[in-house]
Amino acid sequence: MFGFKYYTPTKVVFGKNTELKVAELIKEFKGTKVLIHYGGGSVVRSGLLKRVTDTLDAAGIAHVVLGGAVPNPHLSLVYEGIELVKKEGIDFLLAVGGGSAIDSAKAIGYGVANEGDVWDFYDYKRQAEGALPLGVILTIAATGSEMSDSSVITKEEGLVKRGYSSDFGRPKFAIMNPELTMTLPDYQTACGCTDIMMHTMERYFTNGGNMEITDALAEGLLKTVKKNALILAKDPKNYDARAEVMWAGSLAHNGLTGCGNDGGDWMTHKLEHELGGLYDVAHGAGLAAIWGSWARYVYKNCLHRFKKFALNVMEVEAIGTDEEIALKGIEAMEDFYREIKMPTNLRELGVKVTEEDLEIMAHKCAVGVGGAMGSALLLKEEDMLKIFEMSM
Amino acid sequence: MFGFKYYTPTKVVFGKNTELKVAELIKEFKGTKVLIHYGGGSVVRSGLLKRVTDTLDAAGIAHVVLGGAVPNPHLSLVYEGIELVKKEGIDFLLAVGGGSAIDSAKAIGYGVANEGDVWDFYDYKRQAEGALPLGVILTIAATGSEMSDSSVITKEEGLVKRGYSSDFGRPKFAIMNPELTMTLPDYQTACGCTDIMMHTMERYFTNGGNMEITDALAEGLLKTVKKNALILAKDPKNYDARAEVMWAGSLAHNGLTGCGNDGGDWMTHKLEHELGGLYDVAHGAGLAAIWGSWARYVYKNCLHRFKKFALNVMEVEAIGTDEEIALKGIEAMEDFYREIKMPTNLRELGVKVTEEDLEIMAHKCAVGVGGAMGSALLLKEEDMLKIFEMSM
Repeated sequence: MFGFKYYTPTKVVFGKNTELKVAELIKEFKGTKVLIHYGGGSVVRSGLLKRVTDTLDAAGIAHVVLGGAVPNPHLSLVYEGIELVKKEGIDFLLAVGGGSAIDSAKAIGYGVANEGDVWDFYDYKRQAEGALPLGVILTIAATGSEMSDSSVITKEEGLVKRGYSSDFGRPKFAIMNPELTMTLPDYQTACGCTDIMMHTMERYFTNGGNMEITDALAEGLLKTVKKNALILAKDPKNYDARAEVMWAGSLAHNGLTGCGNDGGDWMTHKLEHELGGLYDVAHGAGLAAIWGSWARYVYKNCLHRFKKFALNVMEVEAIGTDEEIALKGIEAMEDFYREIKMPTNLRELGVKVTEEDLEIMAHKCAVGVGGAMGSALLLKEEDMLKIFEMSM
Repeated sequence: MFGFKYYTPTKVVFGKNTELKVAELIKEFKGTKVLIHYGGGSVVRSGLLKRVTDTLDAAGIAHVVLGGAVPNPHLSLVYEGIELVKKEGIDFLLAVGGGSAIDSAKAIGYGVANEGDVWDFYDYKRQAEGALPLGVILTIAATGSEMSDSSVITKEEGLVKRGYSSDFGRPKFAIMNPELTMTLPDYQTACGCTDIMMHTMERYFTNGGNMEITDALAEGLLKTVKKNALILAKDPKNYDARAEVMWAGSLAHNGLTGCGNDGGDWMTHKLEHELGGLYDVAHGAGLAAIWGSWARYVYKNCLHRFKKFALNVMEVEAIGTDEEIALKGIEAMEDFYREIKMPTNLRELGVKVTEEDLEIMAHKCAVGVGGAMGSALLLKEEDMLKIFEMSM
């Protein structure tokens, strides 16, 4: 068991109609002029944006809007947001949407509060020393960005997708109304559930440290998401299932399910980031397409954890050798992906890759992680290439 | 499932030697002159206090000490602390100890930052509008006060024990080194484990709302504490078991295990507060002495939860009627209390109560909760008296 830091200062306000508390919360955190940052038109079409601006107007809080954050949000929009915030004298950021809008807003927040190029943080060149305060109204349960210290931005030039983590990026508040996620297409819901589970699985499959209580929380979370993802695949308007998945999404990535371990593995995410950078695929689907290949490549080096996962999360029967049980757990996870219509390889993901693409991705990934990374198994460039090849 | 707020801004630094980070953390939260508040002499004898003052001296942070916080901490010492802080121009509080020192420090923090008598907050007369910032070095895993919004103070005049909760009371940081808890007497360790489990059980036995994920976390936490309490009863120097219990203590009471419910039941705590006010018994032991009687009195009105507890936490066999299963769960919990040498009634607790005492406690309890309280079963004064009578 290792020592750890745990810091989740985000004030969560969860339940029906909670978006109407946005003005009150912004005032609590001293916001007077707000940039409302969002993604596509669904926030407009659903009437949510108007409800938010009406609430701010009624409270006398000035606001400017900036839409257009796309999945794998672009650095160019971040630059645009930084300019806009500076020009308008904005002192508070409000992201309305899912991980794309939140991550884009986090990057804007770093860019405003720090001198120089914001990409430096994502390029591992230096650390942020502050950020503009950020609140969130969440509309997609997936990335956990609403409570996490992480954000992921894609630089269009060279299609480089990079993550940056800093406590300054943690939102001041997160408004979570499960009803706002009810109209999400089934595919996006399934992508979200995959991403949520992967955030905890990345922390679970490690060879360093472990706490029983962390494992118990992680296993409980994974089983809950799995069960409710299957409910939502048939009954997407089920409020309780939406709520379970939404809250799990925050807990899966706020640090809770990694306390006492070595930081986790995270290689499925790193491999997917290359896919996402090159092909602009949905993050959750990309994770599902990679995970099984990664798991089969590494499980023998982390057998006790794969066995525990098989027994306690996938609830396979404890028959056979440890290796057989571990493999049954991996198969059961892939079966689950298929049940919620997630891909389990690149072909099902719908991307046509060449061997050369794989080599480029493996090389960029290896450079991105500084040569080698992974706790379940330390992966170098040649390992990354093999996993990509297995996933075709 | 109900809406909820979840707010745990406390920065946790967990692991060996983490107390040496105290100066760095106080600086992070802008403290320049510190009141170190602690309880008995063990903090002095163990050398911890000297390690802390040496660390502060080396960092150039001025400090004043105030010891003497007793279990069921006294209002008189709180008043003394408030005077001292004002006189010395202190801007940061550091509690070194368990719940008593932390709760006493929280009350001092309210008293300094608000006009008027600090007891008003504990007497339900008004709400605090701020508090002096507080950090914690935890030496006893029990009350969860290191991450919670709660504090409990006893007014010596009339022996009135009252709790007050406010987000302003949440500590800025909590340093948790499981090694600091290793020398704790077995009885106090068992009291702590009881208190920890009760914080989550109070949230678990409700008739209003519930989330599957919250239940999964609560059940995982309860099973982990139960298992590690039994390990510590035989092997008190087991670091990993100390760490599991210590982290569970914070999670059990920071709000996590109640998200989506109606706020919980809390009547075992309220009944124990009367015991603690009148007899100065250890809080955890008082809870254990009351809980079985409370459970038998209320379980039929909250049968689905008592059954779930029996199956998922106490892991009794699913044989018999729901009532039989529920009762087996209550019996298993009492067996566990006996295994860790906790009392299951007032006689075993070692207090000699008269019928008149019981009536006084029931009356004070009913007044304290505003007439009636409880989610598993709404209890009035006559119910409280019956539970006290059952627990003799």
